[in-house]
Amino acid sequence: MKLYNNEMANSPRKVRMFIAEKNISEIEIINIDLMSGEHKTPEYRAIAPNARIPALELDDGTVIMESTAICRYLESLYPEPNLFGESAIEIASIEMWQARIYNELMIPLAMAFRHLHPRMSNMEIQNKDYGEMQKNVGVKSLKYFDAVLAESEFVAGDRYTFADIQLITTTDFFIGLNRLAMADYPMIERHFKLMSERSSFLA
Amino acid sequence: MKLYNNEMANSPRKVRMFIAEKNISEIEIINIDLMSGEHKTPEYRAIAPNARIPALELDDGTVIMESTAICRYLESLYPEPNLFGESAIEIASIEMWQARIYNELMIPLAMAFRHLHPRMSNMEIQNKDYGEMQKNVGVKSLKYFDAVLAESEFVAGDRYTFADIQLITTTDFFIGLNRLAMADYPMIERHFKLMSERSSFLA
Repeated sequence: MKLYNNEMANSPRKVRMFIAEKNISEIEIINIDLMSGEHKTPEYRAIAPNARIPALELDDGTVIMESTAICRYLESLYPEPNLFGESAIEIASIEMWQARIYNELMIPLAMAFRHLHPRMSNMEIQNKDYGEMQKNVGVKSLKYFDAVLAESEFVAGDRYTFADIQLITTTDFFIGLNRLAMADYPMIERHFKLMSERSSFLA
Repeated sequence: MKLYNNEMANSPRKVRMFIAEKNISEIEIINIDLMSGEHKTPEYRAIAPNARIPALELDDGTVIMESTAICRYLESLYPEPNLFGESAIEIASIEMWQARIYNELMIPLAMAFRHLHPRMSNMEIQNKDYGEMQKNVGVKSLKYFDAVLAESEFVAGDRYTFADIQLITTTDFFIGLNRLAMADYPMIERHFKLMSERSSFLA
């Protein structure tokens, strides 16, 4: 299998962490240069029509796009350690938390970054008022998830799951890009430290 | 179990379709009035802290938020007919298509609606240029998914799955709200007709 990857982007990091947690060794990593637009070339679009990374190419040529879909495929092939849940309620809880982090935290912080950050001014039709509003939504969500993490070290239940991967990739990437300080959210910072002790953090 | 629902909103319709496809009868439907802001009351937030619908309350008081999480929970309890996939590749394919529809089609069309529609002018800091750009992204995706559906009647493989629910709820809701015409996308229209023949369409 081949994983089309980029070291700086956020989504492929989820897959690399997932691979590291499962100790999978038989995946070849192929880096795609986003800065030069390699993901938008006809060659890459022939592999991944969405022109996004990551994409997983199987040995028969089938391509799986979307980080969560790639992770679910790997969960089927390598069930241990389980990262998407075992019981009905655990499966639902992990899906709920990963979706809530995506919708309530990742999307507003990504929107704020796109509309406010000078680096994005050439790539996006920026609206500072909208960006500030989205940043406020993101800050509110950071406070909310900070309170949730006061109850438990991990996001969904009492063990490491895909929901932790969803949170740590979001907080590690988007808090700094939005010029916010993780120290203002002590339980999110505790989660960051817990995650950073795992070898998968550097995957 | 109790499903907190709204008849006009898009997300709870996914769950209602899912329940209808599985022929589940033991769920009480509780309608939440979004127009009067019932979802933002302390009473509803005590049930669903994200102040969104749908939410599924289990008999022990546990609440599952997010439509996909609710559907996954119901899939565990009522496995037939299967809607999230059985083999590794089918599970990955359904997850991939539902995520691609969400990210490439639903989000841009929702952004376009929010930034362009007069009805949203009091609820959103609108930016017409940004809205038009998002609408263009959505139109490009409609063309892309139209071409994909020329290959297959269903979204993921050759049978009805959660990916079809994700597509039909997106196209039925957001094409009209963006003043686009489904007839311009004949394979999406074919999918609409195929879906509308199922009794779950009116759920």
